Amino acid sequence: MARLVMKFGGTSLADVDRIKTVARHVKREVDAGFEVAVVVSAMAGTTNQLVAWTRETALLHDAREYDTVVAAGEQITSGLLAIALQTLGVNARSWQGWQIPIRTDAAHGAARIVDINGQLLIERLEIDQVAVVSGFQGLGPDNRIATLGRGGSDTSAVALAAAIGADRCDIYTDVDGVYTTDPRVVPKARRMSKIAYEEMLEMASLGAKVLQVRSVELAMVKGVRTFVRSSFDDPEALAVAKSEDRPGTLICDEDEIVEQKVVTGIAYSRDEAQISLRRVADKPGVAAAVFGPLAEANINVDMIVQNVSEDGTLTDLTFTVPNADFELARSVLEEAKGAIGYQVLQGSTDVSKISVIGIGMRSHAGVAADAFQALASRGINIRAITTSEIKISVLIDAPFTELAVRTLHSLYGLDSN
Amino acid sequence: MARLVMKFGGTSLADVDRIKTVARHVKREVDAGFEVAVVVSAMAGTTNQLVAWTRETALLHDAREYDTVVAAGEQITSGLLAIALQTLGVNARSWQGWQIPIRTDAAHGAARIVDINGQLLIERLEIDQVAVVSGFQGLGPDNRIATLGRGGSDTSAVALAAAIGADRCDIYTDVDGVYTTDPRVVPKARRMSKIAYEEMLEMASLGAKVLQVRSVELAMVKGVRTFVRSSFDDPEALAVAKSEDRPGTLICDEDEIVEQKVVTGIAYSRDEAQISLRRVADKPGVAAAVFGPLAEANINVDMIVQNVSEDGTLTDLTFTVPNADFELARSVLEEAKGAIGYQVLQGSTDVSKISVIGIGMRSHAGVAADAFQALASRGINIRAITTSEIKISVLIDAPFTELAVRTLHSLYGLDSN
Repeated sequence: MARLVMKFGGTSLADVDRIKTVARHVKREVDAGFEVAVVVSAMAGTTNQLVAWTRETALLHDAREYDTVVAAGEQITSGLLAIALQTLGVNARSWQGWQIPIRTDAAHGAARIVDINGQLLIERLEIDQVAVVSGFQGLGPDNRIATLGRGGSDTSAVALAAAIGADRCDIYTDVDGVYTTDPRVVPKARRMSKIAYEEMLEMASLGAKVLQVRSVELAMVKGVRTFVRSSFDDPEALAVAKSEDRPGTLICDEDEIVEQKVVTGIAYSRDEAQISLRRVADKPGVAAAVFGPLAEANINVDMIVQNVSEDGTLTDLTFTVPNADFELARSVLEEAKGAIGYQVLQGSTDVSKISVIGIGMRSHAGVAADAFQALASRGINIRAITTSEIKISVLIDAPFTELAVRTLHSLYGLDSN
Repeated sequence: MARLVMKFGGTSLADVDRIKTVARHVKREVDAGFEVAVVVSAMAGTTNQLVAWTRETALLHDAREYDTVVAAGEQITSGLLAIALQTLGVNARSWQGWQIPIRTDAAHGAARIVDINGQLLIERLEIDQVAVVSGFQGLGPDNRIATLGRGGSDTSAVALAAAIGADRCDIYTDVDGVYTTDPRVVPKARRMSKIAYEEMLEMASLGAKVLQVRSVELAMVKGVRTFVRSSFDDPEALAVAKSEDRPGTLICDEDEIVEQKVVTGIAYSRDEAQISLRRVADKPGVAAAVFGPLAEANINVDMIVQNVSEDGTLTDLTFTVPNADFELARSVLEEAKGAIGYQVLQGSTDVSKISVIGIGMRSHAGVAADAFQALASRGINIRAITTSEIKISVLIDAPFTELAVRTLHSLYGLDSN
């Protein structure tokens, strides 16, 4: 029998009425013949309340005790959803991380799932009992509750789907799928019916905010077909359609995507700050001298551009950091000025990164050239360029963000009719 | 080293400020050299919220899922108190029922503790780590969280004290000890410094409401010296006094009470309804015919008085039931009228039960006679009398409750000067 993991976030479980609606979504899939495991977040607001209490008790608090307090949120929703399902006549049982167990590493507060023993749940699924599993948590090597950090429930769901050999993992969220770009910027953006794991990873990293990056990585590694859909759809109206025809986006292997386009989507990020070091000595070890101190200061460096220097002695080095880290990065680099040996530090927070993403680029030449030409024709200056196999990113002046996204979206034929 | 269990209820843990105060109480005992395990209830209000959510989800809900939801309350306070203790520099760790484990029977929602493995906690106590244990919960035979039912945290504390061989179990509550009678009725009531287990059991059953009856039973069976004290005392002001000299009441073995009085306390209950069956056939099996149907209807029968009949054919049978069950009891008995064979059913809810309690009665004659005479001299009519080895209970007309309690309190020399 086909097996399904369904994941619901805190907004979908915000109160008892919403929990009852979620139960109807689950019942629909049970009635359609699926063996179902559900992964739940805490009710929206609960986690914030619990986090606030721990902070009120002590600003610096033991991560293990934080985990004990915060994990109570999912425990509550798992029990309530099991009750709601039983009331609809669906056999259901709640499961906490320690009961399964979902084993994590020792990094309390931001743990990673190490292993899930799917046997117990599989036994229950096979007697047609729905398993309602608390997301966001597991059991650390110290036999204590460990939480995965914010947004970890997506990862819980994908990892659970892999552990029980589910045919699909459905992520219910407050958007109805993954779009070719941000519909607020481009009203003609289209919802994709399918997207390859690699592409989704680029989209997620670049701010599409639909899924946690880690959950997409895990889905790719484990080959878990992941379907993003809206929890606000009417639960019964969708019952007649075959699950995969329902509105939403399937994240899957590229082989499963028959008509692969060259470019799949356009992502953008305003959360970028540019730093340029001018006239850096072009010698071995200089990159380490720059990026070592930034890493130590926990600053995430994204685009890195270094040109071959004309005469082999001095070069320019440009890279981006998150906006919030701009001032910190500046002061770190100014302190390290002697060790690095640059002459001028220039920076700007008024920049955006625009990315063109598509697996099809691998086999199509000229994608980048088309982008550069289109941007130039609109008078948009490109500050820096980085490329990967399936992505081209350009750094531009922030005021041109929307224009650039719309221009590229049209250029690659992504506009809906 | 002396070992101590401290138990705090929901009112003492109602918000983060109170939790910090509780941490100071605990630190005081740690500083005094005790190895300390703390048992906590949920924050006042939390349990009610969780219970309300389960009811809102379904009026009739699975007890196992109810337990999963409701046990989250103690999990939260245990983590917060551990954090508060750490902030005071006290090494502390929270423990849930499943981690220790505290094994219960299968009666989810009203489970009984079957066994506590104290080994893990003892190891931690011996390295001077305070154990903060969630009360009210354990692990059922199905490997799921089971709750003990309302007020079960007192029982958790006493059972834990027995399991880890604690020298004393301190119950912090919103009263400062056990009084010779209700101070609202008798302003001259005195707080007792000590009371024997058996006496406390009678006091608790009769409405003193300081401790759960079950926890007193358990303390008696296991010989756990239990100290009732107020959580509203200033945590540091008491630090200088030797623990046992502090204001509160120690519940202990009668051997430990040097100057045992004949009568220890006067209890009363207004929650009584009297039922009298007149002219019942005085033959074997008639008591079963009366009390069988009442038990089936889950009605708790308390005082039972049956006189020897004059001629050996007809007798009167009087007993009491809780006020709330009076109408139900009437209708059960009217249905069973044929089977029982009584002629008239009389009843009244306007009655009170007054009890005189004291282990010293065992060896003192005339205690009952004194009581009857004192009540008669005040014009108080006695409707029925029952006695046990350490208790005399009389049923009287409700309007005389206060007068009777005050009269008896003075009679046995319990008034404070």
